[in-house]
Amino acid sequence: MAGTTDKLDPNQPLSAADIDHWHAETDVLVIGYGGAGACAALQAHASGAAVTLLELASGSGGTTALAGGQIYLGGGTPIQQACGFEDSVEAMEAYVRTAAGHHTDDSRVQAYCRDSLEHYDWLVSQGVVFNPQFYGGKHTNTPEYQSLAYSGNEKGHAEQQLSQPAPRAHKPKAHWEEGGATLMATLTAAIAATDIDVHFDTRALTLICEGDTVVGLMVRQDGEQRAWRARQGVVLCCGGFIMNRDMVARYAPRLVDGTPIGSPGDNGSGILMGMGAGAAAINMHEGFVSVIWYPSGEFCKGVFVNEQGNRFINEDCYHSRGAHHCLNQSNRKVYMVVDSDIYTEPPMYSAAQVVEVAETFADLERDAGFAEGSLSATMDTYNRYAEQGQDPLFHKSEEWLRPLNKPPYALLDFSIDSGIYYPSFTFGGLETSIDGEVQTPTGQTIKGLYAAGRTTAGLPRTAEGYASGMSIGDATYFGRRAGRAAAAR
Amino acid sequence: MAGTTDKLDPNQPLSAADIDHWHAETDVLVIGYGGAGACAALQAHASGAAVTLLELASGSGGTTALAGGQIYLGGGTPIQQACGFEDSVEAMEAYVRTAAGHHTDDSRVQAYCRDSLEHYDWLVSQGVVFNPQFYGGKHTNTPEYQSLAYSGNEKGHAEQQLSQPAPRAHKPKAHWEEGGATLMATLTAAIAATDIDVHFDTRALTLICEGDTVVGLMVRQDGEQRAWRARQGVVLCCGGFIMNRDMVARYAPRLVDGTPIGSPGDNGSGILMGMGAGAAAINMHEGFVSVIWYPSGEFCKGVFVNEQGNRFINEDCYHSRGAHHCLNQSNRKVYMVVDSDIYTEPPMYSAAQVVEVAETFADLERDAGFAEGSLSATMDTYNRYAEQGQDPLFHKSEEWLRPLNKPPYALLDFSIDSGIYYPSFTFGGLETSIDGEVQTPTGQTIKGLYAAGRTTAGLPRTAEGYASGMSIGDATYFGRRAGRAAAAR
Repeated sequence: MAGTTDKLDPNQPLSAADIDHWHAETDVLVIGYGGAGACAALQAHASGAAVTLLELASGSGGTTALAGGQIYLGGGTPIQQACGFEDSVEAMEAYVRTAAGHHTDDSRVQAYCRDSLEHYDWLVSQGVVFNPQFYGGKHTNTPEYQSLAYSGNEKGHAEQQLSQPAPRAHKPKAHWEEGGATLMATLTAAIAATDIDVHFDTRALTLICEGDTVVGLMVRQDGEQRAWRARQGVVLCCGGFIMNRDMVARYAPRLVDGTPIGSPGDNGSGILMGMGAGAAAINMHEGFVSVIWYPSGEFCKGVFVNEQGNRFINEDCYHSRGAHHCLNQSNRKVYMVVDSDIYTEPPMYSAAQVVEVAETFADLERDAGFAEGSLSATMDTYNRYAEQGQDPLFHKSEEWLRPLNKPPYALLDFSIDSGIYYPSFTFGGLETSIDGEVQTPTGQTIKGLYAAGRTTAGLPRTAEGYASGMSIGDATYFGRRAGRAAAAR
Repeated sequence: MAGTTDKLDPNQPLSAADIDHWHAETDVLVIGYGGAGACAALQAHASGAAVTLLELASGSGGTTALAGGQIYLGGGTPIQQACGFEDSVEAMEAYVRTAAGHHTDDSRVQAYCRDSLEHYDWLVSQGVVFNPQFYGGKHTNTPEYQSLAYSGNEKGHAEQQLSQPAPRAHKPKAHWEEGGATLMATLTAAIAATDIDVHFDTRALTLICEGDTVVGLMVRQDGEQRAWRARQGVVLCCGGFIMNRDMVARYAPRLVDGTPIGSPGDNGSGILMGMGAGAAAINMHEGFVSVIWYPSGEFCKGVFVNEQGNRFINEDCYHSRGAHHCLNQSNRKVYMVVDSDIYTEPPMYSAAQVVEVAETFADLERDAGFAEGSLSATMDTYNRYAEQGQDPLFHKSEEWLRPLNKPPYALLDFSIDSGIYYPSFTFGGLETSIDGEVQTPTGQTIKGLYAAGRTTAGLPRTAEGYASGMSIGDATYFGRRAGRAAAAR
C-alpha cells in the first residue's frame, strides 16, 4: 500500500498480509504527542523499549498544551504539605470515586489515587516544577504562578460528609493559563534527552492487524502512505472526538450546542481506529460542559434561577457541575440574580448580559416575565436564610452566602442560547484495563493495542463530578501505565 | 465447529473458512421472534425469499408479547377517523421529530410517519384487528378493549405549539394489557400460514463472516453448535440489553437503579454480535424510565416537588417524561402533594407511600422537613394560579388543573430509593439505514447484516420524548423494511 493515495477508513484496519513494504519498525509505537502520548513514550522508553512517537501536528503539545495545566494529585504531596494542607489517599479516593457517580470505574479510581504521590514524584523527576503557593480564590485556574488550588467540589456539602476536603489541583509553575504549555514543554525536553524517535506532520490513517493482533499503523507522511510496524504494541493517545462534529451528533448529542474546545487532533480517529480493531467505546455520551460565572468570585454570591424562578444549584459549585444542571432546566433557560454590592463587571469568561434591572424583586420578577410570586418567593426564602448563615436548599458554603439586599437588582442571562460561552469536550472513548490494554465489548483484551488520554474512557466520567486536573492527571498517569505495559509485552 | 462445545464470544464472529459443515441454508435468516423479527420474516417472505426464523425461547412473542401492545400510528388512520379525530402526516411528523430531541434521526422519522397509513393497512392485512373505540382517561394503556388513546405528550403545551394533537396509540383489540400478546398471536398465525421455517429453543451464538460480508450464524440447538448459512442476509431482531446488567452498567448507568422490564432475550447478544461484525452502537446511554403516578388520573391534579419544595414538571405529562425529570432532581428525591379530594387510593402501579399528612401546607412543610417558606410558597403560587385556570410555570392543562385546598394534605414519596416501581428498558443499539442495513462508525454498510427493533437505535431515542407505541411501531415497521431489504439483496 505504501505510496498509494488510496483513501483509507480509520475504522477498517489493514491486514499485515497486504503490506508490501514496512517503512520502519519499532518496539512501541505511540500515536499522539499530547500529555498521554508523551508520558506513554517516556515510560515505555524507561522500560527499555525502542519507542517511536508519531504526531499529526508540526510540534508537540496536543490538547494538553492548550489547557490550563492543572493535574489532580493528592494524598499529601510536598506541595500540599508546604501549603499547610492535610490530605490522605483515603480522602482523595473517596472524593474521586464519588465524582464519577454511577459511571465510576473502581479499579481505575483506586490505582490513580493510591499512586498519586508516586506520580507526583515521577513528574518532578521529568523536570516538572511545582510552586508551593496556594491560591484560595474562586477562579478557573490559579491566576498567577501559584501551583495549588481547589478545583472541583471538594468543599461541597455532600462531599464533605464523605471525605476531608483538600486542594488537589497542581499546576506546573507558570503564569495563569500557561500551565499546560509549560507542562508539555517540560515533557518535550525530557523526551528530547532520550533516543525516542519523534515524527511530526504524520497522520495516523488506520491500524494494521495480523489475525487478531495489532502489529502496526498506516500513516501519511511526506505525502506518502507508510506502514510502521510495532513489535510490541501500538499506544493510541490521539485525543477525544469533540472536533468530529458527526461523531458528536451521533454519540454525544448533549454536547452539540457547546463550543468545542481542544486541538484539531481531537477528531475521534483514535477511537474509530480502536473500534475498528474490535474495541468497546463507552461513556460516549458524556463530556465536559461549562458555563463560567466566576471569576469574579462575587458571582458565587448570586442566585441562579430557572425560568420558573426556582434555584437549582449551590452557586459556589464547580462550573461544569453548574453547567450540567443549567442544561437540565426547562428550555435550558437560566438566569442569575445579583445585587449592586456584588455586581462589578461581567463574569470574565461568559460575559453574560444583564437582561433586566429593578429596585425590588417583585419588580424584577414582573419586568422579566416570571410568574407572580415565583422569583420573589425564591429570593425572600434565600435572603431570610442567608441572614442566618444558612442555605437549607442547596448548602452553599458560608464563604459565599450573604443576603442580596442592595438594590438595584440585576438579572443576567446564562442560558445556552444567549450566546455566552459554553465550552465542551468529550469524556467517552475506548475501554481499557488500568494498564491501557484496549478491550472488546465482551471484555477481551485486543493484543498489541493500548490507549490512554481522551481516546479512552478514563478517570473523568461526568460533567457533574468533574474537577479541573482530572483530565491531565488521567492522561499522564494512565499514559505512563499504557507505555509500560506495551514495553513489557 | 459443529457439534463442539467450545464457548463462543458473541462479539467475535467466526470465519466461514473455519466452518466444516453447514447445518442448513436459507435466503434470509431472521434472529428473534418478537415484533421486529415476525415482521421482518413476513416481509422477506412476501418478497419471495426463503426465510428461516430462529428464536431463543420455546415460543413466539419476545418482549412485544409482554408489552401493552400499543402501536404508534397516525396521519388519519381509519380508527382515528372512526373515533372522530383529525390527524395528518405533517402533524404526526412534527410531533415525532420533536420527541426525539437532539437525538432525532430525520430520515427515520420521515419514513415512519409518511408510511404510517400503509403500515396500518399492512398490519390489518396480517389479521390485526383494531377496535374503533377511544379511551380518553389518564392511564398507561386502554383499560378495556378500546384501540385508540393518547399515549405521549401530544397535548403538552410546547407540543401543541408545533402540531395539532391527535391520539395515535393503536392497541390491537384485546383486554387491557393483553394487546402485545394479541398482536404476537396474530403475527404468529400469519407466519404459520406461510412456509417460513421456524425454530425455537435456538440460541444465536455468533455471526459467521466471509471477508467483510456476513454469511451466516452459529447457533446452539438440540445441544449442538450448528452453522446456518444465509444466502442473502442475517436480520438481527434480538431485542435490547436491559437484562444484561454488565452492559447496562457499562453503557447505560442511568438505568442501573430501575427495574428491568423485557424478556430474558433482551440480553444484548444482537448488539454484541453486530459490534463484533464492525457495527456502530449509538444512543447506548438512553432508555425508557418511568415512574407511574397515574392511574388514577386524579394524581395528575397533584403537585410534584423536589427536596427543595419546588415543582419541576407538569404533572399531566407522560410518565417516562416525568421519570426523566424525577431522576434529574437532587438526590433523586421527589414527592407529590395531594389533598383529600384527589387522594382515594395509592397510584395503581407505583403504590407510592404517604410519608406525611397535615392540615396546612406550612405544617406539611415543617413536619416533612422542607425549608420554611419553600413548599408552602410553591403551593400558594400553584393554588393562586390554579384558581384562575392557569399554570404559568409548567402549563399543566386545564383538564387536570385545580387548586389543592381540601385538607388534610398528604405527601407521597416517589423517590427512586423509596422502593416504588421504576421500570426501565434500553433505547440504544446498532446504527442502521432506514432499510435496516447495519452500519459501521464511519457510515459504511456491513454487507449481509440487517437489524431492527431494540437491537437497533430506532425511532424512540429519549425517555423525555417517548410515547407508548413508539417501540412496537418502530419494531414492526422497520422490521418489515429490514426483511424486505435483505430479501432484495
